Amino acid sequence: MRTTQQPRTVVRAALTLTTAALLLGSTLAPASAAEPDPTQNGGAARNAGDMTDALRASIVDTPAKNVILLIGDGMGDSEITVARNYAEGAGGRFAGLDALPLTGQYTTYSLTKAGVPDYVPDSAATGSAWSTGTKTYDNAISVDIAGAPQATLLEIAKANGLKTGDVSTAEIQDATPAVEVSHVTARSCYGPVKTSTTCPTNALENGGAGSISEQLLDVRPDVTLGGGAATFNETAKAGPWAGQSLFDQAADRGYTVVRDAAGLDALTVADQSAPVLGLFTDGNFPVRWNGPTATTGGGDLAPAQCTDNPGRLASGLSLASLTDKAISLLDNEDGFFLQVEGASIDKQDHSANACGQIGETVDLDEAVQVALDFAKKDGNTLVVVTADHAHTSQIVDSTPPGLSVALTTTEGGRMIVSYGTSAAGGSQQHTGTQLRIAGYGPGAANVVGLTDQTDLFFTAANSLGLTRDLPSLSSGATLTLSQPVVAPGAALTVTASGLAADWTTSAMLGSTALGRADVIDGAATFTGTAPTTEGAQTITLRGAQTGVELTATLTVSADAPTSPPVTPAPDASTPDGAGVGVGGTGPTGGGNSTGGGSASSGGGLATTGTEITLVAMLALTLAGAGTVIVRRSRRSLLPA
Amino acid sequence: MRTTQQPRTVVRAALTLTTAALLLGSTLAPASAAEPDPTQNGGAARNAGDMTDALRASIVDTPAKNVILLIGDGMGDSEITVARNYAEGAGGRFAGLDALPLTGQYTTYSLTKAGVPDYVPDSAATGSAWSTGTKTYDNAISVDIAGAPQATLLEIAKANGLKTGDVSTAEIQDATPAVEVSHVTARSCYGPVKTSTTCPTNALENGGAGSISEQLLDVRPDVTLGGGAATFNETAKAGPWAGQSLFDQAADRGYTVVRDAAGLDALTVADQSAPVLGLFTDGNFPVRWNGPTATTGGGDLAPAQCTDNPGRLASGLSLASLTDKAISLLDNEDGFFLQVEGASIDKQDHSANACGQIGETVDLDEAVQVALDFAKKDGNTLVVVTADHAHTSQIVDSTPPGLSVALTTTEGGRMIVSYGTSAAGGSQQHTGTQLRIAGYGPGAANVVGLTDQTDLFFTAANSLGLTRDLPSLSSGATLTLSQPVVAPGAALTVTASGLAADWTTSAMLGSTALGRADVIDGAATFTGTAPTTEGAQTITLRGAQTGVELTATLTVSADAPTSPPVTPAPDASTPDGAGVGVGGTGPTGGGNSTGGGSASSGGGLATTGTEITLVAMLALTLAGAGTVIVRRSRRSLLPA
Repeated sequence: MRTTQQPRTVVRAALTLTTAALLLGSTLAPASAAEPDPTQNGGAARNAGDMTDALRASIVDTPAKNVILLIGDGMGDSEITVARNYAEGAGGRFAGLDALPLTGQYTTYSLTKAGVPDYVPDSAATGSAWSTGTKTYDNAISVDIAGAPQATLLEIAKANGLKTGDVSTAEIQDATPAVEVSHVTARSCYGPVKTSTTCPTNALENGGAGSISEQLLDVRPDVTLGGGAATFNETAKAGPWAGQSLFDQAADRGYTVVRDAAGLDALTVADQSAPVLGLFTDGNFPVRWNGPTATTGGGDLAPAQCTDNPGRLASGLSLASLTDKAISLLDNEDGFFLQVEGASIDKQDHSANACGQIGETVDLDEAVQVALDFAKKDGNTLVVVTADHAHTSQIVDSTPPGLSVALTTTEGGRMIVSYGTSAAGGSQQHTGTQLRIAGYGPGAANVVGLTDQTDLFFTAANSLGLTRDLPSLSSGATLTLSQPVVAPGAALTVTASGLAADWTTSAMLGSTALGRADVIDGAATFTGTAPTTEGAQTITLRGAQTGVELTATLTVSADAPTSPPVTPAPDASTPDGAGVGVGGTGPTGGGNSTGGGSASSGGGLATTGTEITLVAMLALTLAGAGTVIVRRSRRSLLPA
Repeated sequence: MRTTQQPRTVVRAALTLTTAALLLGSTLAPASAAEPDPTQNGGAARNAGDMTDALRASIVDTPAKNVILLIGDGMGDSEITVARNYAEGAGGRFAGLDALPLTGQYTTYSLTKAGVPDYVPDSAATGSAWSTGTKTYDNAISVDIAGAPQATLLEIAKANGLKTGDVSTAEIQDATPAVEVSHVTARSCYGPVKTSTTCPTNALENGGAGSISEQLLDVRPDVTLGGGAATFNETAKAGPWAGQSLFDQAADRGYTVVRDAAGLDALTVADQSAPVLGLFTDGNFPVRWNGPTATTGGGDLAPAQCTDNPGRLASGLSLASLTDKAISLLDNEDGFFLQVEGASIDKQDHSANACGQIGETVDLDEAVQVALDFAKKDGNTLVVVTADHAHTSQIVDSTPPGLSVALTTTEGGRMIVSYGTSAAGGSQQHTGTQLRIAGYGPGAANVVGLTDQTDLFFTAANSLGLTRDLPSLSSGATLTLSQPVVAPGAALTVTASGLAADWTTSAMLGSTALGRADVIDGAATFTGTAPTTEGAQTITLRGAQTGVELTATLTVSADAPTSPPVTPAPDASTPDGAGVGVGGTGPTGGGNSTGGGSASSGGGLATTGTEITLVAMLALTLAGAGTVIVRRSRRSLLPA
């Protein structure tokens, strides 16, 4: 079995299949000409002379166009050092993790539901903290301690016209990726089954927004890559796709679903019309490196070396390759927000597996290299690297009374790693220490010094110049009828545009629910045929996320010019065949408080008795571009 | 018994007896107008808006005039967080520790004697690393892995004309304070007794530089404050003060020795003529706070609160009061270097005593406040706060299998602290994680990012613009005779000046050792009477630290004008009553390789048979000022 001491190059070689150009580029750390001798005066120093000018040069005032946030789950300073010692040597340097020029510490505590500090947080509360800027209780996914949803960085970025991505080596419903795309009261509510019992207020059948997976489909990031495919075999319990699997729902809503590296490699486009959902494993990714689990007295055993995990190699995937692909799919003139998680540093620390956590740290380091290399070339990208919380592993001098393991490092040293917060077979605990946050690029100055995890939300949002008041971003939306006056049974189109901060809409004709449609680039389009009964009726569209309401009056008159009946577009679908009778005047702003049922029943309109067809169009509309222009204008108003 | 929850104000009130003006001044952190609500969006954030300009403003290009280096022994990020949670709350902020604007992480590994990395260092190797810029083995005090002495920051600062101070709550011979003032092969060589057996190559009787305490007396910092008085009752085994206690030696060499707070308060001067040696306890200082030691299952017990230690309160001393006094004694137009150690964070962590380590962290925080307040007003002071190595304590969620203790924090939360690296009764271990380094002022930019502990040496030395080549600083020294030609038996004075990097000198007449004298402000002065025999003889003075040699020719002639016999000055001493026959020409530069015995025997000169008297003068000489001018000139040559 190959150890990881030599193979580091092999692994990197494999990586270069997808990221060759990036990794071959220069790194941010000054290269040393000759290997320094750490036994000599100055031989172990890392600074290349006085760094004052370099630090000043690293401070960028201009707004960021892109943000890439890389999270090492459970990657406290101790976990970084364990991995560096093993893989690079004590005096070595990770080309990614250690290359960020601006550094600080942040606090990660969470709250109880009563609002009292909880000194040891979980990944749900910590992820929610940076994703929303709101401290919450362990187990919460982007809801506050009262359970109220808090807007996430990814949602806010999308509402401001940026492309968005969410990447993890965990199940994509795991806490860290979940906090960007969903709002549930308990982190385990991956799919409809668990949500019914554990997060009943979130369950679709109870009028909630649904499980983490279903909310992810609603939020519609341009790129979602990770594990967690198993949950997508569950079926929705209510709503337009009730009884259908989440995989079918994703396809139905226009997602490009890929399941392996080849599928991912083949992609060239990810956007709101065809967002990418890459689900590569049923559960979490296999870890990159294997090695002995810590045991009582393990520090006294012959030191081990880590070995490659064939299962991971066979996948052809690494966090770096996912990050590289995500960036290439997201990079666009309006910018993007991308969160990348190396998830199993935490999971392997829980399992007292040093090699497991080291391999995942190395994996994250390579993803950071990819991100930094892009950022360096782009010049307008904020990269932040941090963890959600610290963890158990400690480097000790002699074998401790609890669990430990001895490893032979790359430089031939003997390193003992202690796991002392749980007994053998138990789950090692998170720890509550402040930990490292590091940044590069515009806005990164805000990570220096002592900050809190919630500061990261503001650092990212402000560097991008994002408007965080989501209702305001949809408040200028408009509703357009293709014809204000139509003949009975005539074809017509209703288009809402400028719904920047809404992911789905529901429509009403009078007081009858007409169905639901996804918002694509700010627009929701319904096509159908007018009622056969003459008269004026009010059409109302409601944005599901902001609650904005748009109304228009449709007049059906036999005197109107006729138009042909609508044929559904081949790439569209009619999950809930509601009808709409359309006509009347042009767009009028919202304000009308008619409540709209978001999950309408199918069939004809009781008010008219006429069978009509509603089609949720998945085409790009120019209307979305207007929203983008609004955002750019807002961002340019920020103080330089 | 009073707990520490309410008394924090009481303790501060006591502190203000000595530092009122400083602590009442503004802090570096922006004050928040109203208490924020951590349950609300943004309520837990620490940044006051965008910090980019503030960060840029914190970067100072100009050279530092002063450096204050504050070390929390064993104060890893976990220890800081444990203390903050308890004393200030999870969302709280230490007014000192958390107020430094520039932050980074540094690696602390040491080396084996074979030069291989040792992933878990001790305080000796780590202190040596920042003090000298050279990595070394655990146990080494400012010697490299081969045992060769490495110049320390304090020595280099002194050689460059700065005043110097060394302050600790530990025995002043403990590793952290020792690394600045001594060079021994093992950290336990506090005094002559232990040095004979454990550091034989360093023992005075073997021609070495002596124990840590004896080398401290040689280096002659302007201010030395700490514990460790017991060792000063030992007697020197060789040299000028053989058979005398180190206390007597200190007094004999001009030290102002103080033993309590009142004595310290009364001092108004500390300089090379009257350096201050404050030895307040026989061993280490008593700790500030008491509390329960961690036990198996302790995390499940009723949470405790820390209590004040009456023994510490009774001393009237805190690290802040020592720091304040040291700064006031050291502040001068040529600048100073001061190291301050909060020693017992480490010691209490070893003992699994959470309250003990928290109290010492609070104690250090207040010292940092004093330093920052001075630095802010001074405008030319670099303040660096860091630790030597991380330690065991971890904040956990539930009671671990090893030792733990539950505490009630200031905000009423329950915090469980785990000590899992040693069994009950054992010493909890240091840990090898990278840890926080933070800085304020000129040169502090060099702590940002990932550095090594040895970088701190260069950061401090370069910010002060120090010349690190010590022999070069003594190479311009001169030797002056009061008269080139003297009558037999006439009074004369030999003065060496410009010995900036030597602490003691030895003199020779021809090949006869004439004794040893302390260098005061670069000058060593010998007075005596000339031989009674006519003729020319060479006088050689050798700087003990740099090895620089100065020679002059003395001509004894009956034709010379007579001068009165010398009477010893009342504040001088004649520990080794050697004589010198003096005369000849003016100063000539070194280069002559005549070896000088530094510990001469007393009595008359065999070559002349004439009894003469050597007096080591303790007066200030103007010659030293020249050295200072040279240094300032060098510092001004640094790039801005």
